[in-house]
Amino acid sequence: MDTIQAILERRSIRKYEEKEVSDEIVKELLKAAMAAPSSNNMQPWEFLVIRNKEQMSKIVEAKQAATPLMGASVAIAVCADLNVYKGKPNLWVQDCSAATQNILLASHAKGLGAVWISIYPVETRTKKVQDILGLPEEIIPVSIISIGYPGELKEPSNRYNESKVHFYKW
Amino acid sequence: MDTIQAILERRSIRKYEEKEVSDEIVKELLKAAMAAPSSNNMQPWEFLVIRNKEQMSKIVEAKQAATPLMGASVAIAVCADLNVYKGKPNLWVQDCSAATQNILLASHAKGLGAVWISIYPVETRTKKVQDILGLPEEIIPVSIISIGYPGELKEPSNRYNESKVHFYKW
Repeated sequence: MDTIQAILERRSIRKYEEKEVSDEIVKELLKAAMAAPSSNNMQPWEFLVIRNKEQMSKIVEAKQAATPLMGASVAIAVCADLNVYKGKPNLWVQDCSAATQNILLASHAKGLGAVWISIYPVETRTKKVQDILGLPEEIIPVSIISIGYPGELKEPSNRYNESKVHFYKW
Repeated sequence: MDTIQAILERRSIRKYEEKEVSDEIVKELLKAAMAAPSSNNMQPWEFLVIRNKEQMSKIVEAKQAATPLMGASVAIAVCADLNVYKGKPNLWVQDCSAATQNILLASHAKGLGAVWISIYPVETRTKKVQDILGLPEEIIPVSIISIGYPGELKEPSNRYNESKVHFYKW
């Protein structure tokens, strides 16, 4: 699929078919994730692949907007390892977000549907998800991506808004 | 260009040809930016298109890693409007990062070279860039993307690292 088309057509897909997304495809999504840029090429990310339905339903209890997980074949938690940036400016949120966006675009290009569920920076939610997933204290779940074969079709949404563009000066 | 190819091949390009990137192409990059997802579709972003060489060289003074701007045809500051998320969890860093990544990928797909220069969260640097660009206090420059026709060729860098993948449990 053409890159510009994928970027413009991608939508948040929250309903899925009952069809498994293979580990092979998941690995391709993770390759896309790790191709993201990171500040000073620090690559502070860690990825947890989730297929456990009990964990998914506990995450939904922690965040209602995570409901799409109930029908997802797989989810990927994009996490930051706090040890990586120790003593340097904290840029892991940006790095993990770039990786998350790559996964969303790669999913769309591969005929999958996906939605970005943010976890960080809400502290209680971050802690809960760490507990549910058994993550060490220094591993922060920034986002969880819910993924499956699309069970809903969405037209591209043109969000271009010229009032948000400032040419040459504010 | 194929989406997966663009994601895997994109590199940070810091050297450029002396050739202007048209406003028409810049608008296509901004369309790609605003096609990014944002939490609750809040779209907290604002974009400042920079062509002023004096502003660019002042930004380089504020951050050495911004040096690529000296040869860039154009730059886009991806900013967050703090008013949008008022009273809600602060997710604008993630939203602006997704928009930034879309601009990088769209640039690559269009034969341009680009590099992500982070501004936020370093406070002194954020303040300096606000001054240089004449941004109001509530408009936070998250990143500046330096863009031009590529003056260097970089092979794809395979950053896939299986030790960062946790299948099913941490």
